Amino acid sequence: MKTVYITRRETFNAAHKLYNENWSEEKNEEVFGKCANANWHGHNFSIWVTVKGIPHPDTGFVINLKDLSKIVKEYVVEPLDHRNLNLDVPFLKGILPSTENIAIEVWNIIEGPIKEKGGELAKIKLVETENNFVEYYGGNEPF
Amino acid sequence: MKTVYITRRETFNAAHKLYNENWSEEKNEEVFGKCANANWHGHNFSIWVTVKGIPHPDTGFVINLKDLSKIVKEYVVEPLDHRNLNLDVPFLKGILPSTENIAIEVWNIIEGPIKEKGGELAKIKLVETENNFVEYYGGNEPF
Amino acid sequence: MKTVYITRRETFNAAHKLYNENWSEEKNEEVFGKCANANWHGHNFSIWVTVKGIPHPDTGFVINLKDLSKIVKEYVVEPLDHRNLNLDVPFLKGILPSTENIAIEVWNIIEGPIKEKGGELAKIKLVETENNFVEYYGGNEPF
Amino acid sequence: MKTVYITRRETFNAAHKLYNENWSEEKNEEVFGKCANANWHGHNFSIWVTVKGIPHPDTGFVINLKDLSKIVKEYVVEPLDHRNLNLDVPFLKGILPSTENIAIEVWNIIEGPIKEKGGELAKIKLVETENNFVEYYGGNEPF
Amino acid sequence: MKTVYITRRETFNAAHKLYNENWSEEKNEEVFGKCANANWHGHNFSIWVTVKGIPHPDTGFVINLKDLSKIVKEYVVEPLDHRNLNLDVPFLKGILPSTENIAIEVWNIIEGPIKEKGGELAKIKLVETENNFVEYYGGNEPF
Amino acid sequence: MKTVYITRRETFNAAHKLYNENWSEEKNEEVFGKCANANWHGHNFSIWVTVKGIPHPDTGFVINLKDLSKIVKEYVVEPLDHRNLNLDVPFLKGILPSTENIAIEVWNIIEGPIKEKGGELAKIKLVETENNFVEYYGGNEPF
Repeated sequence: MKTVYITRRETFNAAHKLYNENWSEEKNEEVFGKCANANWHGHNFSIWVTVKGIPHPDTGFVINLKDLSKIVKEYVVEPLDHRNLNLDVPFLKGILPSTENIAIEVWNIIEGPIKEKGGELAKIKLVETENNFVEYYGGNEPF
Repeated sequence: MKTVYITRRETFNAAHKLYNENWSEEKNEEVFGKCANANWHGHNFSIWVTVKGIPHPDTGFVINLKDLSKIVKEYVVEPLDHRNLNLDVPFLKGILPSTENIAIEVWNIIEGPIKEKGGELAKIKLVETENNFVEYYGGNEPF
Repeated sequence: MKTVYITRRETFNAAHKLYNENWSEEKNEEVFGKCANANWHGHNFSIWVTVKGIPHPDTGFVINLKDLSKIVKEYVVEPLDHRNLNLDVPFLKGILPSTENIAIEVWNIIEGPIKEKGGELAKIKLVETENNFVEYYGGNEPF
Repeated sequence: MKTVYITRRETFNAAHKLYNENWSEEKNEEVFGKCANANWHGHNFSIWVTVKGIPHPDTGFVINLKDLSKIVKEYVVEPLDHRNLNLDVPFLKGILPSTENIAIEVWNIIEGPIKEKGGELAKIKLVETENNFVEYYGGNEPF
Repeated sequence: MKTVYITRRETFNAAHKLYNENWSEEKNEEVFGKCANANWHGHNFSIWVTVKGIPHPDTGFVINLKDLSKIVKEYVVEPLDHRNLNLDVPFLKGILPSTENIAIEVWNIIEGPIKEKGGELAKIKLVETENNFVEYYGGNEPF
Repeated sequence: MKTVYITRRETFNAAHKLYNENWSEEKNEEVFGKCANANWHGHNFSIWVTVKGIPHPDTGFVINLKDLSKIVKEYVVEPLDHRNLNLDVPFLKGILPSTENIAIEVWNIIEGPIKEKGGELAKIKLVETENNFVEYYGGNEPF
């Protein structure tokens, strides 16, 4: 079975803070440090979306990258780019926007649309800085 | 078992187009868009070849990178670099040169020579642009 | 005078070959090597366009990057992306598409539109591979 | 005169928005687009600080990078990292935090401390995204 | 099970040579080539440490990156940075410092401290140059 | 005058230490810190060599990159790669191998060979880590 994994990158620039409303300011400061800054900070995020499948004999494609790019732009970049991840994003409402949590919610949002195009979402990689990123496999076995 | 995965990168610059000869021009344009441009386009490709194994007690090596580099240069870079992937490459004859298909064929070409040097090919990653790449594990479980 | 230089990057992927029609095949091979391959090769090009000026008091902008990006996309990316630089590009007709020559012609094409937006083109940097690029200052003093 | 230019990079992650308080919301939206988002957005900024001089015979140094790094961390990274550039930074109070304006103000802040260490500030390069950056030479001739 | 993988990068610059004391100089030269240079050579190494886990409901964290960074700095960067990997590092004594072997020893050194912070070490990626790196999963299944 | 600047990158991996033999160990430690480590440390260096000129009408070239690459490999990479910059390099004998000093000496070594190929050396950029580099213009005006 010649399963191939294809990955598309998109980027977005956003503000956020890490802050637990149920905690005191001191506790937030202790756990989240400068990431809890009341007036926010921000990042250039890169999101790498991986889809698995067998290349189609007519196209050599696992999925058409035009379709994959369009999905990621519509469902991820449009709502997140130049936004505040704590305040502005419907699908992140009530969720502490750590890189981990954003990756999970992005998976939930784009798994369906990718399936509609015949693709199977395999991995979300969300890069926050040149020094840290997270990977999420939808609760499936990693690769 | 202290299995380690070692990866070597090589690069090549090539022209190609995505075009299905059995389709009308309109259909090609619809599916492949500007990638179907009759007069070709091109990319700086990076190929990352991963070999798995247990480091040898005498060398600390899974495989000697000099050997791995030599194999990738001889079997991949030499036939693909500064070539037309639709016209010039014996091992891609009759194959639509999508990134997916190139990765599969590269696997088939170098798996044997790597084995002869005592290595076990584990993964091919082929990067086409800073925004997209494919990964192929020879039909084995991914990692 | 608080002159600031602002730079915008765009990318395009194109095919070309380096070939002098007035020379024999042997001479072309000798001078251009594999870059003369008859069936073309290609690259992921990055173009960095630098505009100089004093930030406007109302905006803090030397030039609005939306405008600069739009100009580069319309005049450079649109005609060059997924094209053959020897065959497909009106403003490169009759010009040997070395990185040097492309940079000069891009300058000539976008200097005017940038001026219309109140900007002064200062530099074109054209990156062909991770190992080589050219810089052109319109014949002015470099910086 | 064996003048050498040495550059040190530091990074900071910050929130900001581009918004002119003297303008209507419509005008802000028209000029700054999504950069005017009321709830902020953010970036991973890189700042490259260049100092010129003749290498000292005893050290081979134009300036000790430990000193240069310490200055940039104290005067730039400390006040800007994980901050809101519109609200949190004393030396940016009342200044529209475009990349251009930040670069100018950083120059003004660190020129003196670098001089005290025997160095001559030559250039500030401030990178906002992988697609745009500004350069400022203190009003001197660029290079 | 919403297992997420989070990765932190740290860097260190070190000297080493690849040399087997039980071999003749000729044999060393034959196998290790210029890497056996008697007077050493060196690299800018990047180490990427991946920890797996389920994001904590209070923090959204698999592990606090401040803790992970502190562990990697204390146990890896401090003993390896600006050191000679053959001579200066207690936990590499008697070990041929190939990239493979360093990765294995780093795993052994930091697995415990990460566990103490409630994390589970999942992967070490050690990058030696832009053209080669190794990955080690502690002898577990790779991903 | 359509002067274009063309740049070629080559890389080398080397060991060195920063140590002034005329100073006490304490003084060396104070000034150079961990860079003075007795048993050396090392880096992946990148050297960017810039040549200026007017593109030749027959080739579109300021200088043939094959020639430029060959010169840099012969005069710089060959003597420096996998070497000890304090001990192994004839043209660095007696010179404290700071990045600044290496750049100056590289200029002196390759200016002549580039001139013989009809090129004019304009700039040496030597990158030591992702956070620092030096630029040298041969004592001429920078750009």
